[in-house]
Amino acid sequence: MICPRWTVAVEPDITPQRDLALAIDNGRIVALLPRAEAERRFAPDALHERPDHVLLPGLVNAHCHAGMTLFRGYADDMPLDRWLTERIWPAESKWVGPEHVRDGTRLAIAEMLRGGTTCFSDMYYFPDVVAETAIEAGIRAVVGMIAIEFPTPWAADPDEYISKGIAVHDRHRHSPLITTTFAPHAPYTVSDQTLSRIRQLADELEVPIHTHVHETAAEIAEALEKTGQRPLARLERLGLLTPALTAVHATQLLDAEIEALATAGATVVHCPRSNLKLASGACPVARLLDAGVNVALGTDGAASNNRLDLWSELSTAALFGKWVAGDATAVPAPAAIRMATINGARAVGLEHEIGSLIEGKAADLVCVEMTDFALQPVLDPLSHLVYSASRDHVSDVWVAGVHLVSQRELLRMDAEAISARAADWGRRLIEGAGT
Amino acid sequence: MICPRWTVAVEPDITPQRDLALAIDNGRIVALLPRAEAERRFAPDALHERPDHVLLPGLVNAHCHAGMTLFRGYADDMPLDRWLTERIWPAESKWVGPEHVRDGTRLAIAEMLRGGTTCFSDMYYFPDVVAETAIEAGIRAVVGMIAIEFPTPWAADPDEYISKGIAVHDRHRHSPLITTTFAPHAPYTVSDQTLSRIRQLADELEVPIHTHVHETAAEIAEALEKTGQRPLARLERLGLLTPALTAVHATQLLDAEIEALATAGATVVHCPRSNLKLASGACPVARLLDAGVNVALGTDGAASNNRLDLWSELSTAALFGKWVAGDATAVPAPAAIRMATINGARAVGLEHEIGSLIEGKAADLVCVEMTDFALQPVLDPLSHLVYSASRDHVSDVWVAGVHLVSQRELLRMDAEAISARAADWGRRLIEGAGT
Repeated sequence: MICPRWTVAVEPDITPQRDLALAIDNGRIVALLPRAEAERRFAPDALHERPDHVLLPGLVNAHCHAGMTLFRGYADDMPLDRWLTERIWPAESKWVGPEHVRDGTRLAIAEMLRGGTTCFSDMYYFPDVVAETAIEAGIRAVVGMIAIEFPTPWAADPDEYISKGIAVHDRHRHSPLITTTFAPHAPYTVSDQTLSRIRQLADELEVPIHTHVHETAAEIAEALEKTGQRPLARLERLGLLTPALTAVHATQLLDAEIEALATAGATVVHCPRSNLKLASGACPVARLLDAGVNVALGTDGAASNNRLDLWSELSTAALFGKWVAGDATAVPAPAAIRMATINGARAVGLEHEIGSLIEGKAADLVCVEMTDFALQPVLDPLSHLVYSASRDHVSDVWVAGVHLVSQRELLRMDAEAISARAADWGRRLIEGAGT
Repeated sequence: MICPRWTVAVEPDITPQRDLALAIDNGRIVALLPRAEAERRFAPDALHERPDHVLLPGLVNAHCHAGMTLFRGYADDMPLDRWLTERIWPAESKWVGPEHVRDGTRLAIAEMLRGGTTCFSDMYYFPDVVAETAIEAGIRAVVGMIAIEFPTPWAADPDEYISKGIAVHDRHRHSPLITTTFAPHAPYTVSDQTLSRIRQLADELEVPIHTHVHETAAEIAEALEKTGQRPLARLERLGLLTPALTAVHATQLLDAEIEALATAGATVVHCPRSNLKLASGACPVARLLDAGVNVALGTDGAASNNRLDLWSELSTAALFGKWVAGDATAVPAPAAIRMATINGARAVGLEHEIGSLIEGKAADLVCVEMTDFALQPVLDPLSHLVYSASRDHVSDVWVAGVHLVSQRELLRMDAEAISARAADWGRRLIEGAGT
């Protein structure tokens, strides 16, 4: 049982409530009720008093490339096309393999977990390793069955990407913390044929499709030249514009495309820091939310961000969302919190499992401590979560009821070993690059 | 003597250098030289080994309203005009007095110091209290002699604002940590007559003039209607467009105005988080820098930000600056660090005293610890300062050679008492507002 000062349940109501207690049994929320009543009803094995804390659902990082964390700071201050072709793709072809992905993903999970992210949706090579690493760490992961038209150390061609992806899906069909998505990299790197096949398989396996869409204006221009269609129209033509679609970035959207996403019931994942850093463009968050589109948040990879920190993203989403809308009332604090929780859960198809503190859902939880003087006075805890707090105010994290972070320390991961391995890869990368 | 792993001296060169030592005597930098040489030349009284740290100049917050920190989170998700007239001005007229300003400023200083800000330029009521509070805390402060046309608890009319301001200036003429600026609130709240008088006095006393300029499009439209001139043109007509001018916000600038600011040698203070949150507009940072304008960074007040955190500002300045320029190479990491250090020093007229690690300058210093796994691998320390680190990685702070923060703890301020006072004011504010 957890007894915080404030509870932000997100659903049915996001208003902070005082002096509730959350009862957990067998990894699930069994009740959220007034503390006095909880004390009468339950005799808990463990009681976590959090008298100066906000309890809220764990954050959902709806788009990242965890393994890329080993490339943090390797390619800054460059546009997306040069970033990919001059730095990232060459480095990946040289370095990426199961050990690199394992160490990068461990580093990413450590950073995400300590910062209050309890579930991440990944798109990277060696998804088998990503799944194993997540299970070992105890974090919830949505593992992307990646597909891209060119060969990488993970697979040689679309057939192999898809068959190896499905093998990962099958292996983790009953892993409680692992689900999957199909993750075709982007319309500009995946053929019609591969996309059609993925569409068919996604229907059969009932998994979402997670892909980069409309990240930059250049992508649209190139697509128009090559295919005569904007990428989203092409996805629609191929039957991919459905509730199962998660369109990442979406910085270039016509009014009709916003309408089409809304009508389809698709999700947009907004990665504000990555879009700003790569000067990609602006996702029209307020207009999407007004149209009824589910908008979630992602960090993107640490090579383009350079932190896997959903508190920075939700704060930036609120600030930048107002600016893009030209309206200081747009993307208010509650909307930002929803984007980072329940909307993320919807994005990955886990809205019945996580994203709010509803009885029966998994106990994926975060406590944020409000005692720091940099958070005083606490006039409005919801405002503070979005505009004043940061990930270093996260005191506790639970995933499926398992306590993984306490007093800002990882309970189940060896932070020193993770750092040492990352530093070692960093040295090899710098030496290998001859700089 | 401080022996860090990397030194970012900012001047003459911003490239991180390894294994230097910084020697300090009597509050000033006496040498920055290779460690081996330093060990031969100096026999230090105290040796600070910082083997995993970056040493850089203390950050300069070139625009804030420290006393307003007690209104943190009091007025979110509203545009500037409603924010001022419905929330801030009524709350200020009810609550602001010397005790409120003292407690608010103490809270602000605690937050800034622990986060690596060693100098702040303030614009608020009771500047006498701001100066005393800064001296007591040991932080460097540039105290604004505020002027506004309407009465507040600090002064009744422009004459009184100016005379009380000058009394503060005179009192601190020899305080080593205190300098002053004239701080007329904004063109839309200060008359021609008052601005002209301030111009004259600023020349006589040789102090800069620090004012809000072109914060929103509405401000320009209103000025055109009332005066027939854009505010910057009016300041120019009144003789205020000189190297002494610090124009805060500057989100609405014509090409000719950028040129005029450059020709005049004026400073622009960019407050990115505040501009985003109030949807005010976008300061054209890259274009200003290209034109040779000195661009510094400010947090603005905690009522519109809601944190006094220059790391967030410099990171946001780099990210948002790229986006506004439509160019991922704009406002690169070194530019962001310069804006937060030497450009800030220039903004407040202290470029010969602080802002870089040059022999003879005051020892206002920050160490950032790079051991956290969320900063691994460290491929490029300058990139990490801007894109990956945050204020919680600041380990040490010195102002004028005095060690004020060690291991992230304030050495000279009572954090608990400051929090308790702030919480108390917060309770009174909520009760007084009847919410």
